[in-house]
Amino acid sequence: MSLMKSWVASANSAAHPFPLNNLPYGVFSTADLEEPHCGVAIGDMILDVTAAEAAGLVDLGEEPLFDAPMWNPLMEEGPAVWTALRARLVALLEDGANERAKVELFLVPQADAEMHMPFQVSEYTDFYAGRHHATNVGTMFRGAENALPPNWLHIPIGYNGRASSVVVSGTDVQRPWGQLKGPNDAAPRWAPSARFDIELEMGAIVGMASDGPLSVQAADDAIFGYVLLNDWSARDIQAWEYQPLGPFQAKATATSISPWIVTKAALEPFRCDTPAREVELLDHLKDCGPMLYDIELEVGLTPEGGSESVIARTNYKEMYYSSAQQLAHHATSGCPMNVGDLLGSGTISGPEKGNRGSLLELSWGGKEPLELEDGATRSFVEDGDRLVLKGTAKGKGFSVGFGDCSGTLLPARSDPFARG
Amino acid sequence: MSLMKSWVASANSAAHPFPLNNLPYGVFSTADLEEPHCGVAIGDMILDVTAAEAAGLVDLGEEPLFDAPMWNPLMEEGPAVWTALRARLVALLEDGANERAKVELFLVPQADAEMHMPFQVSEYTDFYAGRHHATNVGTMFRGAENALPPNWLHIPIGYNGRASSVVVSGTDVQRPWGQLKGPNDAAPRWAPSARFDIELEMGAIVGMASDGPLSVQAADDAIFGYVLLNDWSARDIQAWEYQPLGPFQAKATATSISPWIVTKAALEPFRCDTPAREVELLDHLKDCGPMLYDIELEVGLTPEGGSESVIARTNYKEMYYSSAQQLAHHATSGCPMNVGDLLGSGTISGPEKGNRGSLLELSWGGKEPLELEDGATRSFVEDGDRLVLKGTAKGKGFSVGFGDCSGTLLPARSDPFARG
Repeated sequence: MSLMKSWVASANSAAHPFPLNNLPYGVFSTADLEEPHCGVAIGDMILDVTAAEAAGLVDLGEEPLFDAPMWNPLMEEGPAVWTALRARLVALLEDGANERAKVELFLVPQADAEMHMPFQVSEYTDFYAGRHHATNVGTMFRGAENALPPNWLHIPIGYNGRASSVVVSGTDVQRPWGQLKGPNDAAPRWAPSARFDIELEMGAIVGMASDGPLSVQAADDAIFGYVLLNDWSARDIQAWEYQPLGPFQAKATATSISPWIVTKAALEPFRCDTPAREVELLDHLKDCGPMLYDIELEVGLTPEGGSESVIARTNYKEMYYSSAQQLAHHATSGCPMNVGDLLGSGTISGPEKGNRGSLLELSWGGKEPLELEDGATRSFVEDGDRLVLKGTAKGKGFSVGFGDCSGTLLPARSDPFARG
Repeated sequence: MSLMKSWVASANSAAHPFPLNNLPYGVFSTADLEEPHCGVAIGDMILDVTAAEAAGLVDLGEEPLFDAPMWNPLMEEGPAVWTALRARLVALLEDGANERAKVELFLVPQADAEMHMPFQVSEYTDFYAGRHHATNVGTMFRGAENALPPNWLHIPIGYNGRASSVVVSGTDVQRPWGQLKGPNDAAPRWAPSARFDIELEMGAIVGMASDGPLSVQAADDAIFGYVLLNDWSARDIQAWEYQPLGPFQAKATATSISPWIVTKAALEPFRCDTPAREVELLDHLKDCGPMLYDIELEVGLTPEGGSESVIARTNYKEMYYSSAQQLAHHATSGCPMNVGDLLGSGTISGPEKGNRGSLLELSWGGKEPLELEDGATRSFVEDGDRLVLKGTAKGKGFSVGFGDCSGTLLPARSDPFARG
């Protein structure tokens, strides 16, 4: 596949994240709109799909699919309609399109738009399925010989997260308070988290509901698209709370996602295999085709008033389990899965130090503070830091991007329980 | 407080679960209704609140609150409207009510009704906050000296569950498949759970949204009401999967709740203190009044074609942490809480063997099978077993009940991944 040419000129650059090959789905507002609309990114513009549907340019059924500011209604329609919409968008936006004059009326510059949550998150699940990350964290906490838990090579380990905490890129995140107890403290105390971290992940969005076990192929079929995801994590809250039932408040402050859903269709050219396995998976979790994607990922950190340092570079193909395998495992017990369920991949670290997707790993638990380009150092996120995740799949002469997944850490509020 | 008399004669018995003192909220359907309606139990009848509102007998604001089959819209209105509805229902149903003749038109026999989910579950969280249960389970898994994890006396330990798996009483539950590995097995295998269990719990329903830390008093104020809750649990799936991030598929098959929400107002006379604490809680989690309830609980098990044995009797007041304390902890990190969030108390066991709220405890991990009244034995739930949870708060001359929380275990489906 090569660059698909569009009459929207800005979309025709090899480095642009939003060529006609991509067509990612978001929700945006402008000063002119009374409420947010569904939109598709094309070059530097957004096609207002809500308005285009109302004008009859997009017509996928009897009921409107884009009159609510979310992409869930399209997902509910199923893969045939997903395909039909993509085909229609290509026909409207490709070079030489007949209806160009009409379509131009519905283009909005991205520079004028504010982005909102692209879909309503039904439930949020986060996995722990990157081997380098699990090995790094396990080595820090349990020593190198016990780094991977015994089940890790057999199951994509996951836990239920908190859907209410998922926010769109650009939303500020406030440093949480929590119950903290260091290993040498006599008792826990109530204090702001001092080890607040990021986790570089991809999120898969479930587009088809189910209420019984799914094969890995059926699970892959049910995935609608992907976003970048930053699972903000309070390591000190986590260390004290997580045994025996897993992370809870450490992961409930916020989870940021990119504003654009990149569809599975757009990512097709970038499919790749999971890594070689030293232990064979049980049949129901076995790979049945390439279900990871070659997506280059990076994390930038900008201190307040400073300049950006890229602190990590890695790739989604470093995952040990694909999102399809995670969804298949998620459904094994008969767990009902719903349209809008969000599955975080788990932190994506690579084999080298510069590939680590969390500050916990990059600073090795704070023992080896990271040097930023302007001379500052970081063990964990500091107040005012802006974190930006980027993701790009690189084809021959074209790129497919997600838009930034950003968030700035605000200082903790004053003690909410202080007595006056 | 004594029995409040109603003109619905069946409500005026000291042992009836639904006197005028109770007025629990449910959603029901009958052969005559096109879709389910909101209803209030009174004696052996249900007041059809949806129809009563449509007829103008209940009028709490400009928009109808009961035209959708769920109680979430009432919750959204906040405590003043909760109180106003209860006052109006008492006025309509009390002995000597002026409008009796009109109200009678909207009474439906419970015997003719099928019950549905009383509210839409936003997110579901389950806690591990009963000391006897945590001690029993900890002793089995880690030995008596390490039974309680170090954080247990300081935090109401909880984990996020799966809202999509919550079902109303009467819904059959199918034995799940899962990945299992016993301590002496060389490798895991794919098989139906052989250690499927129940957990006797109460569920608290969040009625007011928040997006920052809550005091224990504010958390108590935000709770709308309570249900009985059975957190079905596959112990063998759990044993293999739960380290390091907690239970996942073991708890995702189903969680059953009672069909009636008993409001906080109805439970006021039964408030009681949490047990004495050997370790002082941090200020933000301290009790600020009696926030547990004296509710007698029991579990009945009926083998297919057999007779019922009551296998456990306990009381909600055995909990170490109240639901208000659990909600306060849940919000510490700034986790947004929403109307319709459901908080499971954790298994409620008492000090004696007959007070244990799970078969895991009752059969001590299967080592001491439980004898049923008809001579059969149980280590865990067997196919065809019907489990019924009951809860009753006993006042002077009246009772407040929840209706049964029941479910029958169906055999596992045939291997969903078997090749033909």
